[in-house]
Amino acid sequence: MYSCTIRPRFNETDALGHISNTVLPSWFESARAPLFEDIIPSWTIANWPIILAHFEVDFLQQIFLGADVTITTQIQKVGNASFTVYHEAFQSNKKVAAGNAVLVFFDFKTQKTTAIPDDIRAILESNLG
Amino acid sequence: MYSCTIRPRFNETDALGHISNTVLPSWFESARAPLFEDIIPSWTIANWPIILAHFEVDFLQQIFLGADVTITTQIQKVGNASFTVYHEAFQSNKKVAAGNAVLVFFDFKTQKTTAIPDDIRAILESNLG
Amino acid sequence: MYSCTIRPRFNETDALGHISNTVLPSWFESARAPLFEDIIPSWTIANWPIILAHFEVDFLQQIFLGADVTITTQIQKVGNASFTVYHEAFQSNKKVAAGNAVLVFFDFKTQKTTAIPDDIRAILESNLG
Amino acid sequence: MYSCTIRPRFNETDALGHISNTVLPSWFESARAPLFEDIIPSWTIANWPIILAHFEVDFLQQIFLGADVTITTQIQKVGNASFTVYHEAFQSNKKVAAGNAVLVFFDFKTQKTTAIPDDIRAILESNLG
Repeated sequence: MYSCTIRPRFNETDALGHISNTVLPSWFESARAPLFEDIIPSWTIANWPIILAHFEVDFLQQIFLGADVTITTQIQKVGNASFTVYHEAFQSNKKVAAGNAVLVFFDFKTQKTTAIPDDIRAILESNLG
Repeated sequence: MYSCTIRPRFNETDALGHISNTVLPSWFESARAPLFEDIIPSWTIANWPIILAHFEVDFLQQIFLGADVTITTQIQKVGNASFTVYHEAFQSNKKVAAGNAVLVFFDFKTQKTTAIPDDIRAILESNLG
Repeated sequence: MYSCTIRPRFNETDALGHISNTVLPSWFESARAPLFEDIIPSWTIANWPIILAHFEVDFLQQIFLGADVTITTQIQKVGNASFTVYHEAFQSNKKVAAGNAVLVFFDFKTQKTTAIPDDIRAILESNLG
Repeated sequence: MYSCTIRPRFNETDALGHISNTVLPSWFESARAPLFEDIIPSWTIANWPIILAHFEVDFLQQIFLGADVTITTQIQKVGNASFTVYHEAFQSNKKVAAGNAVLVFFDFKTQKTTAIPDDIRAILESNLG
């Protein structure tokens, strides 16, 4: 399981006084970075092999400025070409949001999905939560 | 059914050369504005009665700079305190993304959900798609 | 002189109830797109020849949700390798912000500035305001 | 002098492969938070006394994903109603950006500027760099 800490920024608030819900996908994307470094350590933009097919977020509590948010990341499911990452966000000891992202191995040159390579599958499966 | 047009912005691209998936929730939120003006014409920030409980997005095609994106908005479901809005995004005659948002009537003062008022329910139901 | 219209988005507000000042550079960048299409019609990401060296914004009035913002763009100065673009933003018949951006012709391969090509200089000078 | 660390996010890149220049004002705003906690420890949104009048950023080097950015913040000038904050951003031991922000004491109720209170002036002057 991966964990990272995000400091909410003033410009991430909205007129309702809390953190805008539109921000969570960028926080979750950022929380997936260490996972990507583990499964694709030699990635560059030119050979990036993954595309996002779906994400969803449940908003459980309002999130506010003034306290850091901890985001945990684990693998929820591993398929043939795709895998699902599950995130939870905590602020002040409360779970404030949770969600997942479905990522698909994808060849940008042929614009087709590809099977998850075996070595990457092994790392993903070792992080199933 | 509501429809609006969004011009993708350069800073909404990411290093993969396409529009960042993190942008879609802000586009869909923006697309809901005319709906909110219909159901809560006298809203102010101080009496804003709705909170977002969930959203999800399916990414069907990459979205690029250089062509406008049309977003359609309709009501998918009306419950007791919550309703679900469904969005589709089109670029260059292709459906590029779709998703929904679950919105809940909420009293920020008591921090409790409240039933959808009858007059608003009528408007929502007339937009069921 | 170029002109475009931006509809402020809910997630561009901040907790103070107005549009976040951090948003203006993205609006101004977006307003420069038609200028770039005129001066570099055949640009692709791979041969993009310009880099931003500086921007500044004066905030003259608060900007709010609920009324479109018109942004005008003209050329303020043309140098050897760089040119300065000047933007003004208007909402509800008031000038609400103004600012400029200094852009430099730049060869990403050699990482060096380059002189403005003569044909582009002619277009820039014809838009001096 | 204040210092904070920002981890660049994937969605903050743009199609040119580097961090979008539009992101810097949000990083600098975030870097000012500890200063604001020192000068206005009891602030709430309802009594927020400061408005931004101007910012500018010099972009000295491209900023990339994959290395943290350190931002230093100090006071550059203290006037009657306004003060100027100066920021520098460093990545991988290089100064990558610098800029300032002019902030004005402002009464949102009367919509007028106000003099900097003496106790706050003392804190600002002790951070002049």
